[in-house]
Amino acid sequence: MVASTPLPSPDDPRLLDPVFALHAGGKLAVAATVPLHGPDDLSLAYTPGVARVCEAIADDPALADDYTWVPNTVAVVTDGTAVLGLGDIGPRAAMPVMEGKAVLFKEFGGVDAVPICLGTTDPDEIIETVVRLAPSFGGINLEDIAAPRCFEIERRLREVLDIPVFHDDQHGTAVVVLAALRNALRLTGRSLGGCRIVVSGAGAAGVAVTRMLLSAGARDVAVVDRRGVLSSRREDLTPVKLSLARDTADTTGRRGDLADALTGADVFIGVSGGLVDEAVVARMAADAVIFGLANPVPEVHPDIAHRYARVVATGRSDYPNQINNVLAFPGIFRGAFDARATAITEAMKLAAADALADLVGDRLSEEYVVPSPFDRRVAPAVAAAVAEAAHADGVAKRPLSARL
Amino acid sequence: MVASTPLPSPDDPRLLDPVFALHAGGKLAVAATVPLHGPDDLSLAYTPGVARVCEAIADDPALADDYTWVPNTVAVVTDGTAVLGLGDIGPRAAMPVMEGKAVLFKEFGGVDAVPICLGTTDPDEIIETVVRLAPSFGGINLEDIAAPRCFEIERRLREVLDIPVFHDDQHGTAVVVLAALRNALRLTGRSLGGCRIVVSGAGAAGVAVTRMLLSAGARDVAVVDRRGVLSSRREDLTPVKLSLARDTADTTGRRGDLADALTGADVFIGVSGGLVDEAVVARMAADAVIFGLANPVPEVHPDIAHRYARVVATGRSDYPNQINNVLAFPGIFRGAFDARATAITEAMKLAAADALADLVGDRLSEEYVVPSPFDRRVAPAVAAAVAEAAHADGVAKRPLSARL
Repeated sequence: MVASTPLPSPDDPRLLDPVFALHAGGKLAVAATVPLHGPDDLSLAYTPGVARVCEAIADDPALADDYTWVPNTVAVVTDGTAVLGLGDIGPRAAMPVMEGKAVLFKEFGGVDAVPICLGTTDPDEIIETVVRLAPSFGGINLEDIAAPRCFEIERRLREVLDIPVFHDDQHGTAVVVLAALRNALRLTGRSLGGCRIVVSGAGAAGVAVTRMLLSAGARDVAVVDRRGVLSSRREDLTPVKLSLARDTADTTGRRGDLADALTGADVFIGVSGGLVDEAVVARMAADAVIFGLANPVPEVHPDIAHRYARVVATGRSDYPNQINNVLAFPGIFRGAFDARATAITEAMKLAAADALADLVGDRLSEEYVVPSPFDRRVAPAVAAAVAEAAHADGVAKRPLSARL
Repeated sequence: MVASTPLPSPDDPRLLDPVFALHAGGKLAVAATVPLHGPDDLSLAYTPGVARVCEAIADDPALADDYTWVPNTVAVVTDGTAVLGLGDIGPRAAMPVMEGKAVLFKEFGGVDAVPICLGTTDPDEIIETVVRLAPSFGGINLEDIAAPRCFEIERRLREVLDIPVFHDDQHGTAVVVLAALRNALRLTGRSLGGCRIVVSGAGAAGVAVTRMLLSAGARDVAVVDRRGVLSSRREDLTPVKLSLARDTADTTGRRGDLADALTGADVFIGVSGGLVDEAVVARMAADAVIFGLANPVPEVHPDIAHRYARVVATGRSDYPNQINNVLAFPGIFRGAFDARATAITEAMKLAAADALADLVGDRLSEEYVVPSPFDRRVAPAVAAAVAEAAHADGVAKRPLSARL
């Protein structure tokens, strides 16, 4: 073996910082899974042997699922426009996040993930690029693409591709929120259909969380953006917000600002909707549930939230009840890949949320409504539930019994 | 860790074949190079720590070379139109070859390679797709794209990208042919500028081999396609062939068919130009050099070639003097990456050929004009020569002394 990954100059003062020291040379590598010790190995893994595998796939394209790495490989695709809380920092600066995502895919889901940071932010160009890449991948994980473009990109890709397409900032968050909320409601003796929910923020996560809550049976959700409750009476709504308004506040007649919406509400879910004054939080119903998911500063500080709420969750690892997407995406793709699913359906996401909620089991408490990201039971349980739902939904190409 | 790569059904009879058994589940994996044992690791490799690396790169894009995997990662890009000798088998069936290529990149060059099999064969679409992918990769290795489209695709990508772009079927072959030919001529007491060379085949490899021989000092090269010697008097030539004719037979006045060209010629280089009759081979000069590189059936069978030639090389591993691209591309990209070169220049390719030829040294014989693909000295020697040439050519972003 010759010289390996290029490293920073040892004089770079950043290397004194453990974060930068860890990132030197990047966080990923490609590994061969077959031996290559001599000519015999070469003739099997490469020419002339490989030609027979190519011919077999040319004759029967389904064999690519058996004899290439494609069915276990996901492209983590971003345009770098909505990276963490940093915003539009571009594809090059987005790479460390995408590499980190790939590390999590591998570590928790056994999924091979390749970061693809695109040098375009045009939705049509992103879509056509991903379509052209698709023969190389078993799934597409869209990541950190700004709203509202992310909605159209995901919708159109789902329409044209026959592999799973999943915008994690939307659906990963939604799955974990639903799991945590199911347990919080169990603890406070409420039902999803019988409680009043306010979602603050109508970006990628806010829209997806709301859609998922509705799918799961919620009947009274008010979505609030900077101008107040989404309602079709407003004339400033994007098509996505207008559609959401019709399925939420339009059905209950709720209007006004965040304070109006929160008065008497049972559940607050903050997804980047901005800080909430304590006086407003105080208007919520008794035994409230408050999820403030903005990072690093939650919409409602946990110390304040606890004055009014019985269950509090954040996106932070230093408080109980961390709502972390890593609880969802590795198991969801693992399950989809095990089933060789052609899509990730609503039922698969709901099954993921239920499996996640169920793992808490009898240990349920105010401080434990979702498992820890390092609970090793999570990904297998989510994967099994997702694969089963894929079969029930008719999108699995592989029989359940064939999973090895 | 949960269930790993999906595998074929154990009932698949193909698994009795060692080639298919080796290919089950593919030949590649993505590996994390950083630990992820608990929350502390997560906060360094992912949020919140990663945000600082992203911000640093957003402020200074050059830091992506130090703190991501990009500068050591090459995209192996194909459209599946000219795969091995199989032709246009499409992107899915091309994947096993691209995975094999990635295995070789890693094993011999320590380069992380990602197979990208594109669902388009349109040159404009291939170019724009690769340009959009480019922020994710440190280099682009074009592979098995049919001529003449491959020429335009490479030329235009080289113009617009500031990372190495290298069509291996052209230049990898050309580098190894030049290395082998230098040694064969040394053995037979000839010089490159003083011998008569016939290149049979004017596809990707034929064009590149000829261009490289001219760069290295050859003065009498005749390129022959199915209709005879390329000459600007012919009216059926593509622009690429016409340009090549002007730099080859036009300067010597040679014309006619392959038999005419080979009469008295010193060197025959067959690059998929079709089988050659023994009677035609017999017309060559004494102590001839015959490279028949078609696989699996060389243009001149080695047994016949040896009746007329002193040095014989093929593309096959079961005869001496195997002309195998793996002698070139891992070391070339290793050297380009070590120097952080913005391109792979003519001088870098010539340096690679010279380094490869020099490794044979005093062991030079008719049966040993190029090293074995498994000679572990090859990639480091090629890489060092390529990195040095990159510096001399002014395309290196990293000082030689900084190579670790």
